[in-house]
Amino acid sequence: MPRINGERLLADLRRLAKFGAYKSGVHRPTFSPQDVEARRWLAGRFTEASLEASIDGIGNVFGRPRASGRKLLIGSHSESQNHAGWLDGALGVIYGLEVARAFREDSRTAGLPVEVASWTDEEGHFGFFLGSRSFIGDVTDEEIDQARDQNDGTPLRKALASAGLAGRKRETIAPADYVGYLEAHIEQGDVLDTAGLRLGVVTGIVGIRQYRIVFTGEANHAGTTRMGRRKDAGLALVKLAAAIADRFPLVSGPGSVWTTGAIRLEPGQPSIVPGRAEMMFQVRDIEAEQLQRFEDTLAALVAEASSAGPCAVAMETLWTVNPVPMSEAFQGALSRAAEKHAPGAFISMPSGAGHDAQILARKIPAGMLFVPSINGVSHHWSEDTAEADIALGCQTFADAAEEIARQGA
Amino acid sequence: MPRINGERLLADLRRLAKFGAYKSGVHRPTFSPQDVEARRWLAGRFTEASLEASIDGIGNVFGRPRASGRKLLIGSHSESQNHAGWLDGALGVIYGLEVARAFREDSRTAGLPVEVASWTDEEGHFGFFLGSRSFIGDVTDEEIDQARDQNDGTPLRKALASAGLAGRKRETIAPADYVGYLEAHIEQGDVLDTAGLRLGVVTGIVGIRQYRIVFTGEANHAGTTRMGRRKDAGLALVKLAAAIADRFPLVSGPGSVWTTGAIRLEPGQPSIVPGRAEMMFQVRDIEAEQLQRFEDTLAALVAEASSAGPCAVAMETLWTVNPVPMSEAFQGALSRAAEKHAPGAFISMPSGAGHDAQILARKIPAGMLFVPSINGVSHHWSEDTAEADIALGCQTFADAAEEIARQGA
Repeated sequence: MPRINGERLLADLRRLAKFGAYKSGVHRPTFSPQDVEARRWLAGRFTEASLEASIDGIGNVFGRPRASGRKLLIGSHSESQNHAGWLDGALGVIYGLEVARAFREDSRTAGLPVEVASWTDEEGHFGFFLGSRSFIGDVTDEEIDQARDQNDGTPLRKALASAGLAGRKRETIAPADYVGYLEAHIEQGDVLDTAGLRLGVVTGIVGIRQYRIVFTGEANHAGTTRMGRRKDAGLALVKLAAAIADRFPLVSGPGSVWTTGAIRLEPGQPSIVPGRAEMMFQVRDIEAEQLQRFEDTLAALVAEASSAGPCAVAMETLWTVNPVPMSEAFQGALSRAAEKHAPGAFISMPSGAGHDAQILARKIPAGMLFVPSINGVSHHWSEDTAEADIALGCQTFADAAEEIARQGA
Repeated sequence: MPRINGERLLADLRRLAKFGAYKSGVHRPTFSPQDVEARRWLAGRFTEASLEASIDGIGNVFGRPRASGRKLLIGSHSESQNHAGWLDGALGVIYGLEVARAFREDSRTAGLPVEVASWTDEEGHFGFFLGSRSFIGDVTDEEIDQARDQNDGTPLRKALASAGLAGRKRETIAPADYVGYLEAHIEQGDVLDTAGLRLGVVTGIVGIRQYRIVFTGEANHAGTTRMGRRKDAGLALVKLAAAIADRFPLVSGPGSVWTTGAIRLEPGQPSIVPGRAEMMFQVRDIEAEQLQRFEDTLAALVAEASSAGPCAVAMETLWTVNPVPMSEAFQGALSRAAEKHAPGAFISMPSGAGHDAQILARKIPAGMLFVPSINGVSHHWSEDTAEADIALGCQTFADAAEEIARQGA
């Protein structure tokens, strides 16, 4: 079996965390100077690991093996959310690098081709899984023309030019070249940490349905408009949100989650009865049927609210992501490796967060491994994972990678 | 009795509405070029009406009588809310001008001194009743130093300098010089319009208590954070707002109003469980006891919510305005004039909106007259009042002004 070098792995993770270091985390948004520097550093590390390094026209960093045969692709993302954790994404990329190095250092695995990738913008600063979607051929030039940084409005084309990537070719997958895709990631929740478990074998990635619900009433003076004649869009919103909180637990699946993440009242002044209100509501579940059950329940609540009046209520589906099952065979390989390195201390679990693996899974079999997040913290600079868990996860991941890579040989 | 000239009145109102004309309303925020121009135009009109015109160091426009004796002060404001109505404020200022002209044109009233004023920034672009509060000596130079335009951040000092008012003295009241203050205004609600009434004699101006309620939870990933362990500050807010909607009607007075005008979730992203939430909540009533009953109820709901958890809930009183009764004598004079010009078609009613009269009432007796707002529209460019109601209101106002002014003679 390939033996990973825990010290080298941690040193590389610590080095990567210096790009855009923020408190104990990182602030490394896609195509920020720190992110571009990190991509170049990563390409250099790939070269040192005897991989053929390249950065393509969307910023994906590849480390390609010189060995021939069907390759195992390993990746994640190296940019971060704003002021977020040092391991979210970075862990999976450096695991790929370390697995490639460990394979090369062991004569029994040196001939197994491993390709490592860092996918651009998994965190969605400019778009939706831009890097991995570009790689599977799902991003048009027009989409790139139109994409802008959600924080400051910088056009993606301008950001690509600043990064020196303008006009560069975007790499796309030839599925037959790959045995499959593996990705490791921090859990981003507290399931493993709370239960004292050390590894999670991902069964699938939850589906998401994102809705905008709009309430239309009548803006008016908050002092002179009597209660009985108000059409208060904010109050209509509050009542629907409260009804969701009452009703959804009754139709929930075991792992379902639902969230009202944003509310806006218009005009949003203390002395004006809101004339329009808007909420962003999201449901996630691993089962498509459960997502539909939620949607039906929501639609019924919206219809009830709208017909009860006095405000009109309308819902709109902003986007939908179907649940994506991980390869059974890859789950098996990951579970066997986990049983060896953490007997009784791992579980199979769905991923509540989205990952590049769900994009790659459209073209090739995919699998994912989770390591614990301390206290389940995610998307915050205080996110962390115990060093022992980082090392254990990588060794487990390397063992599973070997088993899977051998299928391609 | 002084006879007002309805055509001249309407012509001046239409002329004033040309400064910052927006659709059928006006956009004339305090110290916008259009507002400054309007103030200068107004000063010119005062001069033409044989009043001594001046604009003081806060922008208040005065038209002072040459006649001696205790003066009746008549005023309102000439700036507007953003994209708002043509009569809100302007009506009361032009009524003052027309009453002064009508008095002068009748030998029986020509000796009664009427002073007309347009108070700066009643609409609160830079502060809280800046002009009328400055006139009663309630605004310090430090407050002016610190005030900024709430829309674009322009310092008030800069706006005053642009208007050519830097370094100019601010006028302050000598209460003994005045018999009292009268103000006419559109109702801004639909009480008169709905009941087919033509005049409202204001009994008092409601008190307001404005609260900020803050919910503190824990921001986390909306996909990976299980429902049971969430500390969703947005959900805590929704539940409290729904509880207010259930509970407040049970403890309400007949004319009470309450409003949640603004809600903010943080970070306000669809895929993040809100970690902090904030709502602006306001109550208004003409009775101080009722305001206190609301505050006690709110405090109890906040305490219940906070102790039930999982989020901490805290309330803070941002500002308080006590209810201000209008002078009984002035109500009597206005009612007698109303009975004469609109027998059976007027009522006594509180004002749900704030007005400069509540500031002047701290120093001298004050009274107010309302004319109907069509459909109760307020703070919107479509606000309007029938021309016949505008003229009738002014004649009624002039008659009451005569009766009151004679008390000073």
